[in-house]
Amino acid sequence: YLPPTITDTSLRLSELRALMVSQNISVYVIPATDPHLTEYIAPRDARRAWITGFTGSAGTAVVSSTKSALWTDSRYWVQAERQMDCNWELNRGETTIVNWIMTETKEGETIGADPFVFSIVEWENYEKPLLQGKRQFVAKENNLVDIIWAAERPPAPTDDIFKIPDEFLGRTWQMKVKEIRTKMEENIYQPTAVLISGLDETAWLFNLRGNDIPYNPFFQSYTLLTADFIRLFVNESRLPADIKANLNTGCNTSECVQLKAYKDIRKNLQEYAKGNVKIWIGQEYTTHGVYGVIPESKLLIERYSPVQVTKSIKDSTEQKGLKAAHVRDAVAVIRYLVWLEKEVPTGRETELSGAHYLNNLRSEQMFSKGPSFETISASGLNAALAHYSPNNETNRKLSPEEMYLVDSGGQYLDGTTDITRTLHWGTPTTFQKEAYTRVLMGHIDLARSIFPAGTIGDVLDVWARHALWEAGLNYNHGTGHGIGNFLGIHEWPVGIGSGHTSRLHVGMFTSIEPGYYEDNEFGIRIEDIAMVVKAETKHTFGGVPYLTFEHVSLVPYDRKLIDVSIMNKQQIDWLNNYYEKVRKTMSPELQAQRLTEEYNWLQKHTEPFSHSVLVTYSLINLTGVLLGNLLLQGRLL
Amino acid sequence: YLPPTITDTSLRLSELRALMVSQNISVYVIPATDPHLTEYIAPRDARRAWITGFTGSAGTAVVSSTKSALWTDSRYWVQAERQMDCNWELNRGETTIVNWIMTETKEGETIGADPFVFSIVEWENYEKPLLQGKRQFVAKENNLVDIIWAAERPPAPTDDIFKIPDEFLGRTWQMKVKEIRTKMEENIYQPTAVLISGLDETAWLFNLRGNDIPYNPFFQSYTLLTADFIRLFVNESRLPADIKANLNTGCNTSECVQLKAYKDIRKNLQEYAKGNVKIWIGQEYTTHGVYGVIPESKLLIERYSPVQVTKSIKDSTEQKGLKAAHVRDAVAVIRYLVWLEKEVPTGRETELSGAHYLNNLRSEQMFSKGPSFETISASGLNAALAHYSPNNETNRKLSPEEMYLVDSGGQYLDGTTDITRTLHWGTPTTFQKEAYTRVLMGHIDLARSIFPAGTIGDVLDVWARHALWEAGLNYNHGTGHGIGNFLGIHEWPVGIGSGHTSRLHVGMFTSIEPGYYEDNEFGIRIEDIAMVVKAETKHTFGGVPYLTFEHVSLVPYDRKLIDVSIMNKQQIDWLNNYYEKVRKTMSPELQAQRLTEEYNWLQKHTEPFSHSVLVTYSLINLTGVLLGNLLLQGRLL
Repeated sequence: YLPPTITDTSLRLSELRALMVSQNISVYVIPATDPHLTEYIAPRDARRAWITGFTGSAGTAVVSSTKSALWTDSRYWVQAERQMDCNWELNRGETTIVNWIMTETKEGETIGADPFVFSIVEWENYEKPLLQGKRQFVAKENNLVDIIWAAERPPAPTDDIFKIPDEFLGRTWQMKVKEIRTKMEENIYQPTAVLISGLDETAWLFNLRGNDIPYNPFFQSYTLLTADFIRLFVNESRLPADIKANLNTGCNTSECVQLKAYKDIRKNLQEYAKGNVKIWIGQEYTTHGVYGVIPESKLLIERYSPVQVTKSIKDSTEQKGLKAAHVRDAVAVIRYLVWLEKEVPTGRETELSGAHYLNNLRSEQMFSKGPSFETISASGLNAALAHYSPNNETNRKLSPEEMYLVDSGGQYLDGTTDITRTLHWGTPTTFQKEAYTRVLMGHIDLARSIFPAGTIGDVLDVWARHALWEAGLNYNHGTGHGIGNFLGIHEWPVGIGSGHTSRLHVGMFTSIEPGYYEDNEFGIRIEDIAMVVKAETKHTFGGVPYLTFEHVSLVPYDRKLIDVSIMNKQQIDWLNNYYEKVRKTMSPELQAQRLTEEYNWLQKHTEPFSHSVLVTYSLINLTGVLLGNLLLQGRLL
Repeated sequence: YLPPTITDTSLRLSELRALMVSQNISVYVIPATDPHLTEYIAPRDARRAWITGFTGSAGTAVVSSTKSALWTDSRYWVQAERQMDCNWELNRGETTIVNWIMTETKEGETIGADPFVFSIVEWENYEKPLLQGKRQFVAKENNLVDIIWAAERPPAPTDDIFKIPDEFLGRTWQMKVKEIRTKMEENIYQPTAVLISGLDETAWLFNLRGNDIPYNPFFQSYTLLTADFIRLFVNESRLPADIKANLNTGCNTSECVQLKAYKDIRKNLQEYAKGNVKIWIGQEYTTHGVYGVIPESKLLIERYSPVQVTKSIKDSTEQKGLKAAHVRDAVAVIRYLVWLEKEVPTGRETELSGAHYLNNLRSEQMFSKGPSFETISASGLNAALAHYSPNNETNRKLSPEEMYLVDSGGQYLDGTTDITRTLHWGTPTTFQKEAYTRVLMGHIDLARSIFPAGTIGDVLDVWARHALWEAGLNYNHGTGHGIGNFLGIHEWPVGIGSGHTSRLHVGMFTSIEPGYYEDNEFGIRIEDIAMVVKAETKHTFGGVPYLTFEHVSLVPYDRKLIDVSIMNKQQIDWLNNYYEKVRKTMSPELQAQRLTEEYNWLQKHTEPFSHSVLVTYSLINLTGVLLGNLLLQGRLL
């Protein structure tokens, strides 16, 4: 007997092992990635989920002739236990995958994997130590799981690829191609081509989108761009005639897009690499599979491709689009907050019903294209897991007795949004208020920081943490990530404190999202999107502009959780200025959408905070000093 | 005719070129480093200076069959022009060395260099691009300059090596060896040996010092440490009998130090590497010369060796020593400040005479072993060059009309010191006061920051800059570096904002030294040494201690340059607490040294700053708010 949550994997595993024997492989490694190392993946790429039964987004399966093991992080342990049958053991970090393989194999044995689902670095992380241990890590280009999965495997997507409406475009694809070609010319290593592996990169470059992947409006593709030609590797039948016309596909000059079959990228690349060429690739989104066919001397490897880097600075139309999307998105979120305030006390709503309601509110906004990621709707202790999303087993009732964290976002034709608010409808504890206020203080300290253009995002991370650190508090995740225009919710290399972020320049957008998580109790995160803008400074040492952030998200924070007495004057001033901006921008939008209740709610929730506490403090200080002076002067002695 | 400042290098160059021809080398590269990549070098290692005539500390010479060129940074351009004859061209960054070589050579030609004066990384920085350009970069183990220099070359040092007195030692060398061996055992890569290339590492490990190098109390050596033996490569005749006895040199067990000739390191290492071994090295202080004899599979390379890392956390005796050295050092600096206040108005003193006077003051302090680096004594525009040191040509009179920057330090048997003060004896401009105060605000913000144990030093860099950034000001150097106990003035990997600093833990010492430099006008730097200590925080999230800094340098700042009106309450409080500590610690020391004038000066210069400006500001605020409230309530309408 198997419980209904569990998948029987016995047959799949025995078929996989038979294949492994026939190919002389002792161990086969199955990660949860796709050939473009995309954040979300299409169902047909969910090989790890199919072979194990475990559907969580992160985790790697490893199969030997006698054992099958899964590695995933702690937030998924319960789910994995519930979904996997007895063929599988769950490794909770007792050993690394490589060490496990070393124990399960002997010298000279071969470990196999599909090179198209490993990044260059991840492949080396297996290959090098296994080689040191005298094992071979070999690329098997035909994915063994696919062979077994066969007819059951979801088909390759055939949905039409569609174009972004002109009104949301600042640049034609020709202009973007020209920009990339200029970067190639300017590069001292003289690359002859750029290989574009990231799905968001090709989507952005050609102003096209698809439906292949949940939340990510991308389509399966590669692009090989040289000074002489542009080759787009995509299933041609998915391109309607008007798009083909727009892409200028009927010719072979440098201004035409040559369409090639998606599956031919490797062959084509191999052919191209025979010439006297240098191919520029970004390490983060290129797999060992395509990397491996290019001789090292013909590669120019950077962390991010020039397309990723160019994309990170939004043009004025993209800026406008992102801002407009956030105004409409704020309407949906404000409506949700108003609704929660009324509904939570009834005891009828849960994490799941709330998330569902919020998704619906977003879908009512103009240009909506669905959520930009799975909504994090987390009440009480569930919110202590930073990346929790509710499911039927964990679903918790929303209650005025608990804090509630909602992290959500939408895809709109003009921009992608992402915002987190943490709420309490009852009486928060002193510690909850302190922790929330310190998270907010960090959020504000970062938002109002000033820095020279070109400062690396990670440098600013400390601003978001110091108000917490001062009280011995902290959080274990990054502070910010870039975001796209109807593209990825997490767009690199823009960001703060994630260890791989780029220099900041005007026109970049990043989230600001410090938090605090008290295990088994509650979770706090305050997240907004902000744009990098020029700051007004008295001087400009070094001849560079000095920059700061401008908030693009426009939703007030929960007043009940803010303790202004521990905030400084600058923080309160910032907060009041922000509230003024929220009120000024959102009031007309709410009126235009005839949302009177929300309009009234907004006025109340954006009232300025007074400095009265500070003034009282100063008054006490002042009285003390006056008394002190009088005492010193002997007048009171 | 050659001016007296210039060295005639014609003969040297023609001899070098003859050697190059005989060895089939088209270009020869001569850097200014020694075989241990030490910060200062011994005269016998000053090959670049001898071949060019240019004596500056930084710069690389490159000689082809027809041309000779020198690369050095801008602070040395004037000096290089004055010291080099017409055989040499000075490259002011018009082209990189590698590109210059590419232009001066043809495909297939050979570029030679001594592998013992290149770090592993620096060697690759030549080898890789030259190989891409189809040139060979080859190691010539016999340094060609040495062959020509021959008898004229200063001899290898023969001075006795000496032992640190027991009172300043918290650990015997045996205890330190045991610590390193434990780290070897704990390392998952199972190294069998540690190769110690840094001169400060061997000096620290064996509690020995030497006089081979100016400012750095080191001696020429390598150490190869395994679980079974300890081999010290040093000229044996330099070790007095008592030191040999202490080192237990008469035996070959794991607790004895085997003495080997310094020159035999390469041979010995090659021999050892034949076994089934893994040799742990630190990249930063290992040359390509020794690295090159070990097969890659037998290397464990980290940025810093385990000795460097272990040394970075001072034991309680080392902490006590560093603190005590800074108390005595502060006496010398305070005496200098008092003297300057009286002498500068007479117009008789210069940068050089001041530096000389200060060095003398230090030498009068107990346990003094001379300056720890060349004193930076810089008046007016000279101080705008962050690393300026005065010479006869640039020497400037000290004047009440100009700001003056003095960055200096001493070697003492119990610790090394480093401190910078910036002064003005007349009337500073408003901008000078603002810039100075903002540098001080940054210094204080960093000093009072609180952070979880294990935070990487670089993360805190922004604290030292933000008060400057807010006004559009900045500085182009790192913010902090580690420091030794009668060892190097710059000790890595401890530090802040230099791009290669380690995680911070209690017992580490770092400088805090923000600055501001206005080209052709003035320079400001405020530098103190501080120790990492535990902070008192309400909570301790993550189960780690939260840390902060405790100042070890004890000299007041120039009051004339401080504008408290732009400082916040926390900064003024910190300053007043620091002054109280300076007064409390230094007053008895000055009295004990019978320095009455200095004692009185200190009382005056450590008087607390009042918050009066803040109070006035609050009062205005308060009045405004009261008026506002009254107005709101209609009472004044």
